[in-house]
Formats: sequence, structure tokens, C-alpha cells
Amino acid sequence: MRALNYQDHGLVLERDYPRPTPVEGEALIRVTQAGICNTDLEIVQGYMGFHGVLGHEFVGVVEEIYGEITLDQYNALYGKRVVGEINAACNRYTCYYCRNGMPTHCPQRTTLGIDKRDGAFADYVQLPIENLHVVPDTVSDDEAIFVEPLAANFEILEQVHLRPTETVLVLGDGKMGQLAAQVLALNGEKVIMVGKHKEKLALASQQGINTCLLTDPETFASPFGRRADVVIECTGSEQGLQMALRLVRPRGTVILKSTVAATSNLHLAPIVIDEIRVQGSRCGPFPPALQALKRKMVNVKPLISARYSFDQALEAFEHAKQPGTLKVVLTM
Amino acid sequence: MRALNYQDHGLVLERDYPRPTPVEGEALIRVTQAGICNTDLEIVQGYMGFHGVLGHEFVGVVEEIYGEITLDQYNALYGKRVVGEINAACNRYTCYYCRNGMPTHCPQRTTLGIDKRDGAFADYVQLPIENLHVVPDTVSDDEAIFVEPLAANFEILEQVHLRPTETVLVLGDGKMGQLAAQVLALNGEKVIMVGKHKEKLALASQQGINTCLLTDPETFASPFGRRADVVIECTGSEQGLQMALRLVRPRGTVILKSTVAATSNLHLAPIVIDEIRVQGSRCGPFPPALQALKRKMVNVKPLISARYSFDQALEAFEHAKQPGTLKVVLTM
Repeated sequence: MRALNYQDHGLVLERDYPRPTPVEGEALIRVTQAGICNTDLEIVQGYMGFHGVLGHEFVGVVEEIYGEITLDQYNALYGKRVVGEINAACNRYTCYYCRNGMPTHCPQRTTLGIDKRDGAFADYVQLPIENLHVVPDTVSDDEAIFVEPLAANFEILEQVHLRPTETVLVLGDGKMGQLAAQVLALNGEKVIMVGKHKEKLALASQQGINTCLLTDPETFASPFGRRADVVIECTGSEQGLQMALRLVRPRGTVILKSTVAATSNLHLAPIVIDEIRVQGSRCGPFPPALQALKRKMVNVKPLISARYSFDQALEAFEHAKQPGTLKVVLTM
Repeated sequence: MRALNYQDHGLVLERDYPRPTPVEGEALIRVTQAGICNTDLEIVQGYMGFHGVLGHEFVGVVEEIYGEITLDQYNALYGKRVVGEINAACNRYTCYYCRNGMPTHCPQRTTLGIDKRDGAFADYVQLPIENLHVVPDTVSDDEAIFVEPLAANFEILEQVHLRPTETVLVLGDGKMGQLAAQVLALNGEKVIMVGKHKEKLALASQQGINTCLLTDPETFASPFGRRADVVIECTGSEQGLQMALRLVRPRGTVILKSTVAATSNLHLAPIVIDEIRVQGSRCGPFPPALQALKRKMVNVKPLISARYSFDQALEAFEHAKQPGTLKVVLTM
């Protein structure tokens, strides 16, 4: 099959990559569409030390299911259009994280296209059946590839109680910031996206998101008059957290989303003096993301910057690296 | 009056420093005893840019009360032995922080011996009457000077729900670590202090605290077998947070107590990947600290390393700077 393989010598579009091999409790999915994420771009810069097939944002059709499952389980998945959670946990009773409802933190986990598991930039991908979620008919493939990053923003609401009246600054107007702003504006009145790019802010504006142009990070003050209750750090930059700490109020919360590989030269005293909560945030629950798409509460399609056939995957990657690009879609 | 004054040219024990001047709603307190805190040592290194009389851990007797107060208020305080909360807030209705139960974060606040307010290393000190707490007769002066730093550790319990069955690592065996361990062990079974100094760990052991010697920070692993649910970072070092992030479990909490002036060269990715909560923590509530001392639930007296008369305050400061020193007491 075709597969976009990242190895020491770089990214290669393979023509004869072996199909995934059957594993008990897993399904074989024929990928129909996939999205390029910033994490993919970071992996080819050395992040996570991953080698293998990239890709973790996808939609596809279940073609095979391995292992002993019930007829109901089979009927619920076979031939269905699905999206898949990317962390495959060990699910053992002896695993503290699996036993305590934290499978995404299982130390034995593999992660699709990121850690110890081939990803979805390929004709076929394999995942445990408990990771799969059927996509409602009214959600298109273009929308479905956003379920994974959208879920990562619903994770914020799983972690922190955000009151509808609280002031929320979304720092960053890239892909993550755009999705974060739409999710947080679902029940928040005072959500403002702060970014450096007029055209990206305009995109958010068209979705009814309040926006604010960041001209000078040194002198920028919270547009709320006082510092924000919550700041969502989606800059993808190592300076993002320091800026978030300047913009959040005492006893406020900073949600840290950027996984920058570099170290950050950080003044820690403000965290202590202002008693700030810095909350790291990663993967999230798929069902609320699917529901939001089904009910048309979020609009992800304007975030698609470009579309490539999978045979042009290397060109697509180059495009995704260009500043100003939002989602680049690969169609199989 | 006598006062230990820090100015550009250094620390001076003044003999004729002016007594505090009466202000509406404040009391004049004759200081009887005070403790030297690491914050005092950091201020004379330039932290907070403060100039004035140092000192914020004290016990004293109320000698005068200014302003219109009720007879009950007068009788409750006049001539009484008191300790004092160090943040003096504006208490205006227009202040978001004062109105929302966060006076210690009032942007107009002054802080005793730390920011815009002369401190307690003097014969007399002045504080708003709402900052004062009467010390029970069964709590000695030696114990009372620990109320402020003890309260700062009760703040942890105000901020985070710590379950009695959770594993807690107290990182650091200095003054803050010693108090943190005693407070967290009040309702926690699995509290372990980790430190570099055998004699300080022995001190904690004598109070029934579990301890663990840290020999090599690079290879040190959590003594719980798996990573800790909560890590209290009391190292006072800029490397402390990075180590805490290695020792805390995914979805765990790091309480950040060290106000190091320097910047820390930090890898942020583990906060995001492990979804860790980093919670800054500063001043706390006095009543639970007084209650713990009154009920003899904590034992602070062994933490006193040395005692000096106030006339020897400069020598006391030099002593406090020596490695291995815990609390140095000034007696008026």
C-alpha cells in the first residue's frame, strides 16, 4: 500500500509499504481522507524521536475486524465510516492509568503516527476497536478529519470549570487557536482570540468569534480592561507561556497547549506571586466533538487551506510548512 | 525606635527610625519576637526591589488602635498578643479582587516588609486591624512567629483537593518543606519529604514524617514505585520545577512554592504531554494555622536554629544566610 514514512533519511512516499498486520481487538480501516497537523511538522523536526508512518487526523471505512467480538460490536463497526482516538492503551487491570480512567496516559500506550504505532497517512491504518467512533451521515469527511483536534479542545472543558461569564483569551490564531476559540465560545460569552495575522483573525470573526490584533507582544494588554480569567496558550511558540502569564489575572488559569520541543527561558515567580494555575492539556474526548459537528455548532471547513491527492503528499507537507497555512488535507 | 532598614547601601540597624504614623483602621503593635524568612534574604539580593524595614513573621502586643471602631472590636484587640496577615488590601468595592474574596491579590495592596510597607523587624509595626489574629494563651511566642509560613502551607489545601490516600512528595527539606510536610501529613497518609540534608530529614523524621534522601537528582525516582500524585516544590532552586515534573504522575499536580528571582530554563512539553497542573501558591489563611498550633497538631519549635537579640540583628541575618540554617529568631 502507499504510506508516508518518516525515517532518518527523511520523509518518503512509499508505494509498497506492508499493510498493517491483524491484531486481536483491532480493526483495519481504509483511510479516505487525512489532515496534516503541526505535530506532524514537529515530528519531522525530531520531536518525539518517532520513525514510521505519520498521520493521526483521519477518516476512513472499517474493512476488517480481528478477534472475538459480539455480533452487535461487529454490526456497529463493519463497513462504517469512522474516526479514531489516537492513543492505544494496554487496558490491563494492573495498569494504574487504565484502571483509573486515564487510558490516554497509559505508560504502555502507543500513539497513532506519533509514538510506536504507524499512522494514518497510508491507504490502511489499524486501531483498537474501542478507539473508533462512527461518523454521523450529516458530518462530511472534510469535517470528520477535524474531530481529533476538536476533541483536544473539549479536553480543556474536561479539565477546568470554565464559567460562561468568565473572560477567556485565546492566544494564537493558528489551527489550534481557531478550534479552541470555537469550542470555548460554545458556552462562553467573553472569548477573544488574540493573534498576529489579520486574515486568520478575519476567519475567526466570520464565525462570530471576537478577535484582537496583537501588534507588540511587549506592550499588549488584556482587551478586557483587567487581566483575563483564563488564557488558552495556542501560540506554538516558546515565548507563549510567558506572555500568557502576563495576560492572566491572579488566581487565573493558563491552559498550555503548545508542545514546543525547545526549552523556554521562563520567569517562574509570577506563577507563585499571582497563584496561577498552569494546566497542560493534550488529547480529548471524541463524542462531544462529533456532536458539535453534527449539530453544526462549530464550523471547521473554512480552516481548510489546501487539498492534495495522497500521491502529492510530499508537496502537501511543504505547503503545510508555509507560514499562514491552516489545515492541509490529503485525499486518498 | 529600632528598625532593620534595607536601603541601596545595604542593611542598617537604625536606632532612631520614626515610629509608624497612625492611619485610620490600623493598629500599632509592639513587636516582641520575629523570624527571618528566605524572602527576607532574597530581598537583600534585590528581589521585589523593596526598600524599607524588613520582616513579616512576627508576634506582638496591640498598643494603639486608630479610627472609629466598635467597643467590641476595641476590647477584642487592645492589649492582646497578635500575629498579622501581611497583605494590606484596599478593600474598596470597586476593586475586583477585594470584592471577590481575593484581598491577598489586591493590585493596590501593600505587603509587610516586602512591598510598599515597612515590616516587623522594628520595635513597632502597623497593620490594618482586619489583618490581626489574637494568639491563644497556649501558643507561645516561639510558635506564633511560625503562623505566617504555616498559613502559606494551609493555602495549598485551599487551592487543591488533596485526598488522604494520595501520594505526596515534598521536594525540599528547608523551612518551607518542613512546614509543608507537617501540614500535608495532617490528613495525608503517604507524605514523603525528599531532601539533600540528613540532619534536616532527621528533624522531619522526629515529627513522624516519612523521609527520603536525595543523592543524585538526575537518577532519583519516586519512592512510591510510581510517580507521585502531588509534588510540593519547596526547593528554593530554579531547577526545582523541572525535577518536580519528572516526579509527578500524568494528570498530577505540582505545587510551586519557590519564588526564585532567576529565570528557569524549562522543558514545557512534559506539562502538556502529561497534562500536569502547575499551581503557584503564596500566602494563606491564619486561622487554621493558629488552630493547628493550639491543638499541638504541628511542632514548629525544633525548626528554630538560633536566637538573637534584636540589637544583634545584623549578625542574625548573617547566620540565617548560612547553608543548613533553619529559622533564626529575633527577640526584641
